[in-house]
Amino acid sequence: MAKELTPRHIDYAKWYNDLIIKADLAENSGVRGCMVIKPYGYAIWEKIQQELDRRFKETGHQNAYFPLFIPKSYLSKEADHVEGFAKECAVVTHYRLKNAPDGKGVIVDDEARLEEELIVRPTSETIIWDTYRNWIQSYRDLPLLINQWANVVRWEMRTRLFLRTAEFLWQEGHTAHATRDEAIAEAELMLNVYADFAERFMAIPVIKGVKSPNERFAGAEETYCIEAMMQDGKALQAGTSHFLGQNFARAFDVKFATKEGKEEYVWATSWGVSTRLIGALIMTHSDDNGLVLPPTLAPIQVVIVPIYRGREDFEKVNEVAVNIFENLKKAGIAVKYDDRDTHKPGWKFNEYELKGVPIRIAIGPKDIENNQVEIARRDTLEKVVVSQIGLTDYIRKLLEDIQETIYEKARAFRDSMVSSADTWEEFTRLLDEKGGFISAHWDGTSETEERIKELTKATIRCIPFDQKPEEGKCILTGKNSKGRVLFARAY
Amino acid sequence: MAKELTPRHIDYAKWYNDLIIKADLAENSGVRGCMVIKPYGYAIWEKIQQELDRRFKETGHQNAYFPLFIPKSYLSKEADHVEGFAKECAVVTHYRLKNAPDGKGVIVDDEARLEEELIVRPTSETIIWDTYRNWIQSYRDLPLLINQWANVVRWEMRTRLFLRTAEFLWQEGHTAHATRDEAIAEAELMLNVYADFAERFMAIPVIKGVKSPNERFAGAEETYCIEAMMQDGKALQAGTSHFLGQNFARAFDVKFATKEGKEEYVWATSWGVSTRLIGALIMTHSDDNGLVLPPTLAPIQVVIVPIYRGREDFEKVNEVAVNIFENLKKAGIAVKYDDRDTHKPGWKFNEYELKGVPIRIAIGPKDIENNQVEIARRDTLEKVVVSQIGLTDYIRKLLEDIQETIYEKARAFRDSMVSSADTWEEFTRLLDEKGGFISAHWDGTSETEERIKELTKATIRCIPFDQKPEEGKCILTGKNSKGRVLFARAY
Repeated sequence: MAKELTPRHIDYAKWYNDLIIKADLAENSGVRGCMVIKPYGYAIWEKIQQELDRRFKETGHQNAYFPLFIPKSYLSKEADHVEGFAKECAVVTHYRLKNAPDGKGVIVDDEARLEEELIVRPTSETIIWDTYRNWIQSYRDLPLLINQWANVVRWEMRTRLFLRTAEFLWQEGHTAHATRDEAIAEAELMLNVYADFAERFMAIPVIKGVKSPNERFAGAEETYCIEAMMQDGKALQAGTSHFLGQNFARAFDVKFATKEGKEEYVWATSWGVSTRLIGALIMTHSDDNGLVLPPTLAPIQVVIVPIYRGREDFEKVNEVAVNIFENLKKAGIAVKYDDRDTHKPGWKFNEYELKGVPIRIAIGPKDIENNQVEIARRDTLEKVVVSQIGLTDYIRKLLEDIQETIYEKARAFRDSMVSSADTWEEFTRLLDEKGGFISAHWDGTSETEERIKELTKATIRCIPFDQKPEEGKCILTGKNSKGRVLFARAY
Repeated sequence: MAKELTPRHIDYAKWYNDLIIKADLAENSGVRGCMVIKPYGYAIWEKIQQELDRRFKETGHQNAYFPLFIPKSYLSKEADHVEGFAKECAVVTHYRLKNAPDGKGVIVDDEARLEEELIVRPTSETIIWDTYRNWIQSYRDLPLLINQWANVVRWEMRTRLFLRTAEFLWQEGHTAHATRDEAIAEAELMLNVYADFAERFMAIPVIKGVKSPNERFAGAEETYCIEAMMQDGKALQAGTSHFLGQNFARAFDVKFATKEGKEEYVWATSWGVSTRLIGALIMTHSDDNGLVLPPTLAPIQVVIVPIYRGREDFEKVNEVAVNIFENLKKAGIAVKYDDRDTHKPGWKFNEYELKGVPIRIAIGPKDIENNQVEIARRDTLEKVVVSQIGLTDYIRKLLEDIQETIYEKARAFRDSMVSSADTWEEFTRLLDEKGGFISAHWDGTSETEERIKELTKATIRCIPFDQKPEEGKCILTGKNSKGRVLFARAY
């Protein structure tokens, strides 16, 4: 059983890594911190992309493409931004190699040094706002609603597949608006797009909120986020949307003529999600047998496995299996018929369980006699025998049911992982014994937040949108607080 | 008329650049040699991507994603490959910036020097074959049919929008096979996919053939190509497919166990097309009024422009226009209704002509009275008045007709630009007076090809698949030749 995973309760981190390797999602490459996304993992990313892209276009956004490289001087133009990104930048300094003098391989050609070094984009605010200066003159050019699908690079020292890699794939929206209110409304709209996508499409329940100043995006006035809860009690930031105020417009001198003929700086937002979502997907739904995929994201929604001994059996089974395959395919279901004779049914069962295929249909000679099939759900591991008549409808409904069941299960777990703490002792005990989100009072200062992080590794994940006004005392300092925020240890 | 283009006969290069800027396709960025692809240009690229991706999947390929960076030593492993790419590589040497000592901006942190420099991928054979080593053990793992959509960087000194940029977007297929014949069949299959796509989808006629050794991809045993003819008589290589032999398998030690239990090196292909296709698209179809787009690639296939004076007119016209809009949309046609009152109809006509919208529908009060509309074709600039009854069907057929007409026009032009030359004098005269493809005898040596290039700037575009055996004398050296090849000056 080479495919067996380390169980979660033994070593969650190892289970996560094992699962990614064994389910053929991704692997580390020969390049430090950079992963290879394998076809099965990339097929999931394509589904994420398609659905998000559809939602972005539905809300009026267009795609464009901006350069991979950012001149070093651009980065410095917004003070907080450079502070946030300078320490993890891949820097291009030369544009040519030459043969090594010893005749072995190639070396950097020192005569081909760039006049100004280029940064491989860690995010594109600077290059985009440098471009927007020429695109925006008047209120008629606003709003400008643009998204980019791209790769970005942040030189992380400790990397983990999907969660934190030096290079990752993402989308970044960059919009420009005539007023502060419009920009805030856009940032909120896109957060809602992310939240709805996470819950309905990825079946990942999320909490919407605002980041504390310490956790804000470098250069933002406000960062909105969706926070998810992983099975090991750690939170994961699944998407962010930033209200950037006029910071980048000032830094890149982007002004527009208002209807009244005045000149004003433009208001900005940016928002993004990345291949990190696949990490969230795995750690929300999967189990010790492997990946569990919501049907919306499954590259294969249904797999059909024939069971037979000898040629005669096979022919009978095959005829029915092909027929079912064709019907499901016609109904728009992503179905695979695995009729390989090089692998046994048991091996196939394991393989598709590991890969999170939501429904497995097995058909053997006895099923042919009784006009039935055996159906196994990946999420609950339940098996039932059902009639071949009306099978397509049954499968369609079952896929919907699985989508809902997976979401409800994740939501119940997440809800069970939200606790309240009123004292420091209760707070630290909950963190150590249970994990999860802890709703607690905080005095509102960066210093306290920093100190709590040092002491416990827990950070403020968000100030939830549905925060209730409530007088209380900060769990660390005892100072006054007007509402609870959500703490957690996080990925 | 700020939108007027430099006519082609005055300055073709300027016309090309003007058109790209004025039709909002792309622009140069603040980063040397890198372009910004604007939403309208990117929408065309998305259509190219979708259709190619569909065709790749139909032929059994899967997408995956490999790292942006390639360790310098990987590049050196295949001798011809490094020779071909080392001189135009962006090189990452550091991974961090720090504050400048004078407090102004940031500088490269010399303490954060990489142990081994990284190349920003100019193409991914090396990193991919380094990965394939772990993916391929047995004949059962073959064929491996993978494609990647990615950005690549080649440090070109003279750049032109879409045609030659330091960074560009492309797809690169990388396949692995058990036998030489299978790999050659794959390289040919993908060339045919490209050719069919170019002709049917982009309406660009192409000539299929094989490159001479001088023009081969660095590391390939054979390069297949499709060559298109631009309006100014210069050829453009629109796509290539390479049979790589066992070169990369040897360089990266990728062997497999055959059915018979022997160990053998794997056979490889790679194939790619890029955003350069948009350059080919522009220079194949467009005219002095702007872009001409085949309907398959047009982000807007039909635009409806209302013509009216005053409120009462508008309401009548609007009702009919909205109705037509809805019907076309329901029929799956990409239609836009431009009811902006900030621009006059004449301005709009110009704008959509510039942007290559295939069909314009104008509706005024007289049309309402007569139950008709005015239709203008972008390709021929013809106008006709047609009945509102059966309009959707009419438009659907017209779109098909435009697609065909554009292709036939381009094909007739291309055919007119293929000449034969039997002497050096004839050859050089044709090149200077007419341009186009020149079918001529060549003695088969690299020296002669190189000398012809030095003397005339013409290169062998391809040895066409349909080359007829024919005894002749090389136009330069008079030595024996067994068939004609196609020469041209090229982009």
